[in-house]
Amino acid sequence: MAGSVILIIALSLFGLAVAFFYMKKVTSIPIDLGLNPEESGKLKAIHGAIAEGAMAFLKQEYKVLLWFVLGFAVVIGLLTDNAETQGTNEGWYTAFAFIYGAAISILSGYIGMKVATAGNARTTVSARNGLADAFGVAINSGAVMGFALVSLATLGMISIYLVMKHLLVDVPNNVLMEVIAGFGLGGSTIALFARVGGGIFTKAADVGADLVGKVEKGIPEDDPRNPAVIADNVGDNVGDVAGMGADLFGSCAESTCAALVISAVAFASDVNAMVYPIMITAVGIVVSLVTKIVSQMLVTVSAEDKVGKALKMLLGVSTALMVVAIYFVTTMMIPATFEINGVAYTNMGVYWCFLAGLLAGLAVGFLTEYYTSTEYAPVREIAKSCETGAATNIIFGLALGYKSTVLPYIAIAIAIFTSWHLAGMYGIAIASIGMLGTLVIALMIDAYGPVADNAGGIAEMAGLDKEVRRRTDILDAAGNTTAAIGKGFAIGAAILTSLALFSAFITSAQSLMRALPKYGADYNLVNHITLLDPVVYTALFIGAVLPFLFSAMTMKSVGSAAFDMIEEVRRQFRTIPGLMEGTGRPDYATCVAISTKAALREMIAPGVLIIGTPLLAGFLFGVQAVAGILAGSLVAGGVLAISSSNSGGAWDNAKKYIEKGNHGGKGSECHKAAVVGDTVGDPLKDTSGPSLNILIKLSAILSLVFAPFFVNFGGQLL
Amino acid sequence: MAGSVILIIALSLFGLAVAFFYMKKVTSIPIDLGLNPEESGKLKAIHGAIAEGAMAFLKQEYKVLLWFVLGFAVVIGLLTDNAETQGTNEGWYTAFAFIYGAAISILSGYIGMKVATAGNARTTVSARNGLADAFGVAINSGAVMGFALVSLATLGMISIYLVMKHLLVDVPNNVLMEVIAGFGLGGSTIALFARVGGGIFTKAADVGADLVGKVEKGIPEDDPRNPAVIADNVGDNVGDVAGMGADLFGSCAESTCAALVISAVAFASDVNAMVYPIMITAVGIVVSLVTKIVSQMLVTVSAEDKVGKALKMLLGVSTALMVVAIYFVTTMMIPATFEINGVAYTNMGVYWCFLAGLLAGLAVGFLTEYYTSTEYAPVREIAKSCETGAATNIIFGLALGYKSTVLPYIAIAIAIFTSWHLAGMYGIAIASIGMLGTLVIALMIDAYGPVADNAGGIAEMAGLDKEVRRRTDILDAAGNTTAAIGKGFAIGAAILTSLALFSAFITSAQSLMRALPKYGADYNLVNHITLLDPVVYTALFIGAVLPFLFSAMTMKSVGSAAFDMIEEVRRQFRTIPGLMEGTGRPDYATCVAISTKAALREMIAPGVLIIGTPLLAGFLFGVQAVAGILAGSLVAGGVLAISSSNSGGAWDNAKKYIEKGNHGGKGSECHKAAVVGDTVGDPLKDTSGPSLNILIKLSAILSLVFAPFFVNFGGQLL
Repeated sequence: MAGSVILIIALSLFGLAVAFFYMKKVTSIPIDLGLNPEESGKLKAIHGAIAEGAMAFLKQEYKVLLWFVLGFAVVIGLLTDNAETQGTNEGWYTAFAFIYGAAISILSGYIGMKVATAGNARTTVSARNGLADAFGVAINSGAVMGFALVSLATLGMISIYLVMKHLLVDVPNNVLMEVIAGFGLGGSTIALFARVGGGIFTKAADVGADLVGKVEKGIPEDDPRNPAVIADNVGDNVGDVAGMGADLFGSCAESTCAALVISAVAFASDVNAMVYPIMITAVGIVVSLVTKIVSQMLVTVSAEDKVGKALKMLLGVSTALMVVAIYFVTTMMIPATFEINGVAYTNMGVYWCFLAGLLAGLAVGFLTEYYTSTEYAPVREIAKSCETGAATNIIFGLALGYKSTVLPYIAIAIAIFTSWHLAGMYGIAIASIGMLGTLVIALMIDAYGPVADNAGGIAEMAGLDKEVRRRTDILDAAGNTTAAIGKGFAIGAAILTSLALFSAFITSAQSLMRALPKYGADYNLVNHITLLDPVVYTALFIGAVLPFLFSAMTMKSVGSAAFDMIEEVRRQFRTIPGLMEGTGRPDYATCVAISTKAALREMIAPGVLIIGTPLLAGFLFGVQAVAGILAGSLVAGGVLAISSSNSGGAWDNAKKYIEKGNHGGKGSECHKAAVVGDTVGDPLKDTSGPSLNILIKLSAILSLVFAPFFVNFGGQLL
Repeated sequence: MAGSVILIIALSLFGLAVAFFYMKKVTSIPIDLGLNPEESGKLKAIHGAIAEGAMAFLKQEYKVLLWFVLGFAVVIGLLTDNAETQGTNEGWYTAFAFIYGAAISILSGYIGMKVATAGNARTTVSARNGLADAFGVAINSGAVMGFALVSLATLGMISIYLVMKHLLVDVPNNVLMEVIAGFGLGGSTIALFARVGGGIFTKAADVGADLVGKVEKGIPEDDPRNPAVIADNVGDNVGDVAGMGADLFGSCAESTCAALVISAVAFASDVNAMVYPIMITAVGIVVSLVTKIVSQMLVTVSAEDKVGKALKMLLGVSTALMVVAIYFVTTMMIPATFEINGVAYTNMGVYWCFLAGLLAGLAVGFLTEYYTSTEYAPVREIAKSCETGAATNIIFGLALGYKSTVLPYIAIAIAIFTSWHLAGMYGIAIASIGMLGTLVIALMIDAYGPVADNAGGIAEMAGLDKEVRRRTDILDAAGNTTAAIGKGFAIGAAILTSLALFSAFITSAQSLMRALPKYGADYNLVNHITLLDPVVYTALFIGAVLPFLFSAMTMKSVGSAAFDMIEEVRRQFRTIPGLMEGTGRPDYATCVAISTKAALREMIAPGVLIIGTPLLAGFLFGVQAVAGILAGSLVAGGVLAISSSNSGGAWDNAKKYIEKGNHGGKGSECHKAAVVGDTVGDPLKDTSGPSLNILIKLSAILSLVFAPFFVNFGGQLL
C-alpha cells in the first residue's frame, strides 16, 4: 500500500477520534447543569421532545430512503455495465459503491443530528455561566459534525478505491473510477432527499408556528403553548444540520470523484498523484484541528462583539493554513510536469487551481455577506423600501437577488477560466475541491448555528432567565452572518463540481463510444456537443427550465405543507381546553408527525424530476441531449440558486434591521411590509435555493454513472 | 427586376393604402360626435392632453435617439468593414442600412401613436351608439398600426436589398446580406429604447396615479382630479403601442435578416428564393385584409360575449388563410430541392418549418392565456392563496411563473428541433417568420387594447354616461386576453429569431475567419464552440446573468421613476388649492414631463449594458466568447421573460377575479393581498419581461453586424 494511502487512512481515523473527543466534551456537561428541579424537569422534557422529534423524522425518512436506495441500486446494477463496449460487467460494483456512499451519507447526517440535539440544551445551561461557555459548547457540537463527516467521507472514498481496485483488477483505470463515482451518486441522492425533505419540514413548521401563534394568537416566538414550537425547533436540526451536512458531504464526494475520474487518465500508474484529491480533504482535518486550537488561543469570547470575530478567525486561520499546507502536498504528490490527453501541465498549475477555487469561494462567500447583511447598503435599501409597502419591498428584494448573481458568477467564471487554462478539466475538479478546502470549519460553523438557535428556543420554553436568551441570541446572530458565507461556498462548490463532473461524463462517454463500431476509434464526441447542434441546443432549452420547474415544485410544497400545519395548530387551539391559558398541554408530537408526513410526501415529485429527466432524455435522444441538459440546468440553476438565497437572506435581515428600531421599528406599517418579504423569502432561501445546489450536482453525477447506459441504449428517437 | 420583387413592392404599397383607408375611416368620425357643448369641451381638452403628452414624450425620446443612432452609426461604419478579410469596405453601407432601419422603426411607432391617440376619443363617443360601433373604431385604429407597420417593414427590407445590390455589385452575396442586417439592428436598437423607456414611463405613471390617488386620497381610477391620470393614459400609448410596435417591427426585420443571410449561401443566383422570407410577410398583408373583412361578416359584435369571439376569429381566420397561402408561395418560390453547406433540403421541408413556427407560436400564445386568464385553474389558485395573505400570493405567483415556462419551452424546443431537422438553420429562421406569420393581425389586436383602455379613461374623465364606460370596459377586458396571446407570440418569436441570428453570426464569422491566414481556409468555427471549450463555457455563465442584471436594473428603474411621480402628485395635492374638491386644476403636463424625464434617464444604463457587453466580450475574448454569451443569455433570458410576464399577468387577473366578488371581493383583506401581487407584477410584466425580448434579439443581431470587428480585432486578452 502506498504511503499516501496509509496517510489518508490514518488522518481519517484521527479525525474520527477528534470528533469522538469533542462529542465526549459536549455530553460530559450535565444537561441540567445548575438548574433547580422545576427548571430541570421542564428543560429535560423540551430537550427530549426535540431530540425525539428529530430522530422520529430521520427514522421515517431513512425508511423511505432505504427502499429507494435499494431499488435504485438495482437499476444501476442492471443499466450501467459496460458489457457491450469494454467487455466488463461492473454495473453491480457501481451499485455497491452507490449503496456504500448512501450509507455513509446517512451515517454522517445521523451523527450530526445526534450531537446537535445533545448540544442545544447544554448550550442553554452553559449560557447561564456566560457567553464563552455557551459558545464553547455550541462550537464543539459543530466540530463533532465537521470532523466526523469529513473523516467519514475520506475514509469512505479511500476504502471504496482500495476495495474496487482489489476486486476489479483487469479493468481499465477509467472504468474503475466510474464505479467509484457510484459512491458520489449515493451521497448525492441522500442529499437530495435530505435537503428537499428537510427544507420542507423546517419551513412548514416555521410558517405554521408563526402564522397561527404569533399572528393569529399574538403569543411570542418559541412560546411553549404553541403546538408547532417543537416541530419548529426540530426543523432547524432537520434542515440546517442533516440537510446541509448531506449536501456538503455530496459536494465533497462528487468533486473528489470527478477529480479521480479525470486523474485516472493522467496518473494511471502513480497512486500518489491519483489519490491527491482525497489527500487535500484529509489534510484539511489536521489543519482544522490546529485552526480550532489556535483560534481559541487568539480570540476569547469575552464580549458580544467577539463572537463574530471568533467565527471569522476560524475561517481566516484555516484558509491561511490550507494555502501553505496544500503547497507542500501538491509539490510532493503531483509530478512536476504531466500530460492529460496530450496537453502538458505542471504541479504548480494544479496548486494555482486549488488556490483559484479557494479564493473564488471566499469571494462568493463575502459577496453573499455583502448582499444579505444588515451592515451594508443593499439590505438597508430593502429596509427603506418597506416604507412604501410590501410590494416595493418584494420588487426591490427580487431585484437585489437578480443583481447579486453578477459578481459571484464573475468570480466563478474567473476561477473556471484560469483553472481550465492551467490544468484543463482536472484543474476545474481541483478548484472545486479547493472551494471546499475549509470544509471541516465550514461544517462546524454551519452546525453551530442551529445549535445556538435551538438553545435560545429551549431557554424561552423552559422559562429560564432573560439573560440566557439574550446570550444565545448573540451566538445565533453571529452564526447567521457566517452561515451566509457558508451558503456562498456551497453554491460555488456545486457549480464547479458540476462542471468537473460534466467533463468527466464527456470523457467517459467518449471512451465508451470509441469502443463501439458505429462510432469508431476516432470518434470525437466534443465536436458533437457544439452550440450549433440541434439536439444540444434543444436540450439546452430543456435543461434551463428544469431549475425553474424544480423551484416551483418545492416552493409550492412548502405552501401546502404549511397549510396542513396551520390547520392542525388552529385545531389544537380550538379543541384543547386551557391551551391559551397555559393549563392545557399542547400535542407537540402530532405537529412533528404532520411536518414529517408532508416533507416525505412532497419530496418525491421533485426527486423524480431531477433523477428522471436526464435518464429519459438520454434514453430518447442520447449523450448529446444529456450534455445539453446538464449545461442548461447548470447555467440557469446557478443563477436561480444564488438569486433565491440572496433575496431570501436580504428580506430576512431587512426585517431584523427594522426590528432593531429603524424605519419605525417593530409593529409599524413598515415592519408589516418587511414581514411579508421575510415570509416570501423563507422557502426561497431555505428550501428551493439550497435544493438547487443538489439539482445541479446530482444530474451531473447521475449522467456520469449512467454514461454506459446512454452510450449503449440511448438515442432511441434519433 | 424579378417578378417576386415587384410583387413585394406592390403588396407593400397596397398595405400602406389600406392603412391610409382605415386611418381616414377613423378620423372621419367627429371627435365630439353627439356630445353637448359642455361634454364636448371636456372631452376635447382631455383628448388633447393625452395626444400632446404622447407626442411630447416621443419628441423627447426621438431627440435622444437621434444622437444615439448617429453616434452608433459612426461606430458601425468604422468597425464593421471587411477590409482585412474580404477586401471590401462596406462598413459605411451597413451604417446607412442601420440608420434606415432605425428611421422606419421610428416612423412606424409615430404612425401607431398618432392613430391610437386619434382613435381613443372616437371610440369613447362611438360607444354611446353601442358596442359594435365602438369596437369598429378601436379595431380600425389597430388596423392602421398593423398594416402600416408591416408594409413599411417589407418595403424597407426590399428597398434596402435593391439599393445595396445595386451599390455593392462586386461583393459576395453573404457580405451583402450582412450589410442588410444593419437594417435589422437599426430597428432593434429603437425597439430597445422604446420598450425600456415606454415600459418605465407607463409603470411610473400607473403606480404614481394609483398609490397617491386611489390608496392615499381614496379617489377612483381615472378621476380627472388626479394629476397623474393623463400621464397614466399617455403611458398606455407609449408602452403598449409605440413600445410593442417597435418590438415586433424589430422581430420581423431581424428574423427576415437572419433568413436572408442564410439564404444568401443557398440561393446565390435565385432571386425569387432569396426574397421568399420577405414575401411571407408581404403575403400576410393581403391575407390580413381578407381576414378582417371575412371576420366582420362572420361575427357581429352585438353583445358582450361577441367581443372576444370577434378578436379570436381574427386570429383563427388569418392563421388558416396563411397556412393555405404560404403553401403555394413556398412551392412557387423555393426550388423542390436545394442545398445548404452540402446538405440537401426540400421546399416541402421549408413549408413545414413555417408551419412549425406558426403552431408553436399558437401553442405558446394559448399556454400564456391558460396561465394568466381568470377562466382557468392557475389564476384561481393564486386568487385563493390571497386568503392567507400577501406573502402566499407572492410565493404562489412566483411559482406559477416558474412553472409556466416548461410547456412553452417544450413547444419552442419541438419547433427548433423539427425545423432544424427539415431545413437546418434556414429552417429556424423560417420558423421564426412563421411565428410572426399573423403579424398584421397581432399588431391590430395589440394596438386595439390601449385604444379601448384609453377610451374608458376618457369617458370617466369627461363625465360621460356610466353605460359608455361599461361598454369600453367590455372591449378592454376582451383585449387583455388576446394581448396575453400576443405576448406569447412575441417571446416565442424573439427566441427563434435570436437562434436564427446566432447561426447567421456563426456562419458569417466562419467565412470571415477562413479568409484570414491565421485561421486558414479549412477553419471550422463550429468545432470551437463546444460545451467543453473554456472560453465558451465561461461566457455561457456571463451570458446567463445578463438577463437577471438587466431585469434588476429595469425593475429598480420603475421603482425610482414611480418615486419621483409619487412625490409630484403628493406635492400637487398639497399645494394646489381646491384640487380635491374639483375646483382647482391639476397640472397634468408636469406629471407627463416627470415620467418622460425619468424614462429617458433610466433607459440609458440597461441600453448600454445590452449593447456594450457583447462588444466588450468580443473585443477582449473573441468570437467564441460572443457565441457563449449569446447562447447563455438566450437560454436564461427566455425563461425569465416568460416567467416574469406570466407571474405578472396572473397577479393582475387574480386581483380582477377577486374584484368580481370572489374570496371576499373588493376591499376585503384578500383583495389587499391581491393588490400587493398586482403591484409587484406590474414592472415584471410591462417593463422587465417584455424588454428581455429585446435583450435576446438585439445582442444576437448586434453580434452578426459586428462579426467583422470580432474577427479582425477581437480576442485581445487571449
